[in-house]
Amino acid sequence: MPSIGIDLGGTKIMAVLVDEGRVVEKAKKSTPRVGTPADVLDAIAATVRKVDPDGVAARMGIGVPGPVRPGTGVLPVALNLPGWDHDVDVASGLADRCGGRTVVVDNDVNVGTLAEVRLGAATDVDNVLGVFMGTGVGAALVLDGVLRQGPRGLAGELGHTYVAFRDFAGAAVGRGELEDYAGRRRMEARARARASSGEATALVELAGDGRMKSSTWETALAADDAVARSIVAEATDAMAAALASAIALVDIELIVLGGGMAERLGEPFRADLEQRVAARAFAGVAAPVRSVSLGSTGGALGAALLAEETQMVEDPR
Amino acid sequence: MPSIGIDLGGTKIMAVLVDEGRVVEKAKKSTPRVGTPADVLDAIAATVRKVDPDGVAARMGIGVPGPVRPGTGVLPVALNLPGWDHDVDVASGLADRCGGRTVVVDNDVNVGTLAEVRLGAATDVDNVLGVFMGTGVGAALVLDGVLRQGPRGLAGELGHTYVAFRDFAGAAVGRGELEDYAGRRRMEARARARASSGEATALVELAGDGRMKSSTWETALAADDAVARSIVAEATDAMAAALASAIALVDIELIVLGGGMAERLGEPFRADLEQRVAARAFAGVAAPVRSVSLGSTGGALGAALLAEETQMVEDPR
Repeated sequence: MPSIGIDLGGTKIMAVLVDEGRVVEKAKKSTPRVGTPADVLDAIAATVRKVDPDGVAARMGIGVPGPVRPGTGVLPVALNLPGWDHDVDVASGLADRCGGRTVVVDNDVNVGTLAEVRLGAATDVDNVLGVFMGTGVGAALVLDGVLRQGPRGLAGELGHTYVAFRDFAGAAVGRGELEDYAGRRRMEARARARASSGEATALVELAGDGRMKSSTWETALAADDAVARSIVAEATDAMAAALASAIALVDIELIVLGGGMAERLGEPFRADLEQRVAARAFAGVAAPVRSVSLGSTGGALGAALLAEETQMVEDPR
Repeated sequence: MPSIGIDLGGTKIMAVLVDEGRVVEKAKKSTPRVGTPADVLDAIAATVRKVDPDGVAARMGIGVPGPVRPGTGVLPVALNLPGWDHDVDVASGLADRCGGRTVVVDNDVNVGTLAEVRLGAATDVDNVLGVFMGTGVGAALVLDGVLRQGPRGLAGELGHTYVAFRDFAGAAVGRGELEDYAGRRRMEARARARASSGEATALVELAGDGRMKSSTWETALAADDAVARSIVAEATDAMAAALASAIALVDIELIVLGGGMAERLGEPFRADLEQRVAARAFAGVAAPVRSVSLGSTGGALGAALLAEETQMVEDPR
């Protein structure tokens, strides 16, 4: 029986109709930039109608940009969604708008990683860490083939693990977490600070009036910009340390790497990261780093898979 | 039906007979300091005969001081055991010497943590990290009530997670792992280096011709030794960072703290550590730190429990 999967992001909503592990329909819509959570839910429901106008799918899964309260369909806060500063019950809000379908809600990084394990880059491995590099660093754990949500919905917060416990003592911003080195927001802050103190870099000019995007970093690296190179090298080493820690603590067999920043930094970055992880491995037990393989529909596909798997647990027939 | 549990350490072998979760017999013997693994296995078998001379227990579990090859009873290397520099099949070696009993083998830290979760300080919680501070830092994960061994037997290597990814660049010893700050062996090296460079500390004198033991640190702290205080404070902060990372990555609800060093540093250390973990928590989601409660038979008890639980999985009747 087909299922619906939705990937809710800050800029777009992606919906897919999935049948036997294949995407058979897909539709995209811009996420409302103003308004309330109700407007966002309306936009999601409209996207769902585009992929399943006749209501053939009984189950629906959605990946959302924030931590979901465990055992509920509630997204308490989402910085990238309009008016989302309070508890919103996404599961019942969508069920109401979509003909009473059962709705399963989880974090976008969790469902993206699940999709890669079930149908993408990691189908041959049971213990996987999915890492998505963008503004911050998101991650998810699949252990013995099962997505780990954790008792408080916290599992997978690699971006908030400590890689430098003393570097930020007394600092106003930062605590020595991985995101302080390898998240694009903090990498930009470092680049701007270095430019302000007189170092030559094209990054500030390339960014213009806006933020430094992943493509900004790609362009600067291609031009062999020294500041960009040094900040990316430090990000890579911090990431390698955090990944080696995760391998030693949880016994991870494979890292699956995605996100806008990883995509733009490309194969040289992946290869460098893999090598640094191996160099930091405990007792020589490392893990390869593979790029995600499902592309832009990965998250929505994973949400549909999660809806199907949740059904199997509830109703094993 | 009763089970036998064994804790094999570098200095002593502890065996217990366990019935319905209670230790009904126990016996201790020194670990052979010279000889071969066969001599160690003979000594273990002799200790087993002391707690169960009539062979009433059908199952036997043993915690060993090193990583066990997953899915086997093989301990490939143990630095603290004589001649143990090659693969030794502990399971079949003990079964041969103990009347063909089924033998389950696991790491000592794993079984010690399992005992605390089943019968000790953590019976009310399902997601626990056990941390044992001694010469190094050992740890074990219980997730959703199940001991995680990991596909390569690596799970729980908290001592080898990175807390300072840049501090040791180019150094001959150390890589910025937790043990570089919070393991007694490395803490001693720091203390000796500071004494050599002229700082006043009683630690070197207290150690005399031997190593700095946990009691050495306890005595120096009681005398308000500045070098001891500073090294322990750094160890505590490094430990707090590693624990906060584990909480964020795996969603751990409770830390159980044991080992000779933690025992000697006592309640002030535990309380300080708990507070620092809370201060570093992501999104305010921390975990309390409790001391182990089972004392010196905890490891052997956990080994017996593991033998019982392994039996339940194989034969659910």
